[in-house]
Amino acid sequence: MKIAETAAWLQTCEQAVILIHQNPDGDCIGSGYALAALLRQMGNHAVVRCSDPISARYAFLLDDKDTVDESTAAVISVDVADRKLLGDLDAVYGERVQLAIDHHRIHRPFAAECCLNPQAAAACEIVYAIAKQLPVAMTEQIATCLYTGIATDTGCFQFDNVTPNTLRIAADLMEQFPNIRYAKINRAMFAVKSMGRLHLEQKLTDQMRSYFHGKCVVICITLAFLQTYGVDPAELDGLANFPLQVEGAEVGIMLKEKTANVFKISMRSADYVDVAAICKQFDGGGHIKAAGCLMEGTAEEVIQKLTDAVERSLAVR
Amino acid sequence: MKIAETAAWLQTCEQAVILIHQNPDGDCIGSGYALAALLRQMGNHAVVRCSDPISARYAFLLDDKDTVDESTAAVISVDVADRKLLGDLDAVYGERVQLAIDHHRIHRPFAAECCLNPQAAAACEIVYAIAKQLPVAMTEQIATCLYTGIATDTGCFQFDNVTPNTLRIAADLMEQFPNIRYAKINRAMFAVKSMGRLHLEQKLTDQMRSYFHGKCVVICITLAFLQTYGVDPAELDGLANFPLQVEGAEVGIMLKEKTANVFKISMRSADYVDVAAICKQFDGGGHIKAAGCLMEGTAEEVIQKLTDAVERSLAVR
Repeated sequence: MKIAETAAWLQTCEQAVILIHQNPDGDCIGSGYALAALLRQMGNHAVVRCSDPISARYAFLLDDKDTVDESTAAVISVDVADRKLLGDLDAVYGERVQLAIDHHRIHRPFAAECCLNPQAAAACEIVYAIAKQLPVAMTEQIATCLYTGIATDTGCFQFDNVTPNTLRIAADLMEQFPNIRYAKINRAMFAVKSMGRLHLEQKLTDQMRSYFHGKCVVICITLAFLQTYGVDPAELDGLANFPLQVEGAEVGIMLKEKTANVFKISMRSADYVDVAAICKQFDGGGHIKAAGCLMEGTAEEVIQKLTDAVERSLAVR
Repeated sequence: MKIAETAAWLQTCEQAVILIHQNPDGDCIGSGYALAALLRQMGNHAVVRCSDPISARYAFLLDDKDTVDESTAAVISVDVADRKLLGDLDAVYGERVQLAIDHHRIHRPFAAECCLNPQAAAACEIVYAIAKQLPVAMTEQIATCLYTGIATDTGCFQFDNVTPNTLRIAADLMEQFPNIRYAKINRAMFAVKSMGRLHLEQKLTDQMRSYFHGKCVVICITLAFLQTYGVDPAELDGLANFPLQVEGAEVGIMLKEKTANVFKISMRSADYVDVAAICKQFDGGGHIKAAGCLMEGTAEEVIQKLTDAVERSLAVR
């Protein structure tokens, strides 16, 4: 569905359950709660559901006052590229998603209708476009949600998913809502680290491994590592970008041990390697420069497989 | 002078020496070289002069092919808030600056004419506005200079000096010059660290001091520290923002020992403290959230004076 059709459909949607993806980030939370607020602005009802708890750092975006009849409400997903990413909610709602609003290049269709725009840097850009077509005014809370989603999915306008449209939406929000503390949001999202996180980064700097003349940098967070240093899991947020900050790195890989010998892999690339293609080899997916997969084996086995795949990608260039 | 007058004046300027401030950053380098390129586009001649060497990370902005007769050329400063900031070039040119283009709130007038806009997040925003009034086309090199200056002076659109206009200028540049590798520039400016820098940050995390329940965080880089760890001075760039990344910090202070018991102080604030006002007490200056001064004494004496001043500022709230 186009933006205008989606907006028309939403106007008829009296009750909605809005689903966001597991391990929720600023963009799915922002687009989910913005959409819920827009529906409420039209006199409809909406709730946001996520399989995982939402980190306290996003508490300023949440508004969970509304209720719906979940058995009859329309089900909408935002920023969900694949049913699997609904986590535990897939079993509950996966079969009855009526509308999926998404911006992932690799979107595996699962909803009856889809409003997809892979050119959008964030799902929040799409929700902004929809909001402009709805017969309601935007509010400060909605603008806060949309700005936060756009900022977090672009690394504060740093990544190459940013388009002139991305910047103009942010400019429009800033102009319409001058009282929102944008810099304060940015500081909380991008600049601030707990002392625990700073010390964690110290330790990761020590164990960082570098391959192919520094073009690939790997960090590995094992269960033993977490236990040894008493790391709060909340400190791990966004750590996937850590390896790529090393000068000269083209591919950054983070292994995170979920259960014994099962690793969640997060890959990032700086410039030319398609990490979504690499992760696809291991049944994962994502964006060209930010992707992930799940792998089994010892840390050494997993690292060997991953670096072999990275070596092939680097060789192509 | 207004933008239009400044543009008219520049059209008559056949030869120009463009001065930028000492310890040059992305904004003064970007605005200086953009202005030089604009003058050359009009068939005029311009050179950029700085008292200090320009770091290799900005090499992609430089274009030093032109020459002028420096004894008769017009002298223009960009992004220079005070004559003192011309460094060694003050003695050579300080008396004969004809035009100062600047965006600092605290600009101490020293030029015959001044094109000042404290609302601009970067001097590059002013040069962009001037460029729009000139009878020449922008080039990719000019756009690269302007984007880099705007991005670096706003922490990649993160700080509260960003206005809708800032974002729209970036959007316009991106639209007009889609081939510029914006994300690559951002990565080089904001995301990348050398291994030396990462190890330096490890050490600074260890020696970080915290005052007033964590509201003020101080790091101190003494000559002894630099010698002990064999730190390359180039690794220190932008380190002034390091203390403020600690969760809960409102004021971040970096002391850098220039010569024995002479410290360059860089202060940053997160939200409500006016660090320019604090630095002014020690004969320094800058922006509300980023300022500096020079102080003499032992590290302990200097830290005592600074934290006393910070305590008074925190108490006002």
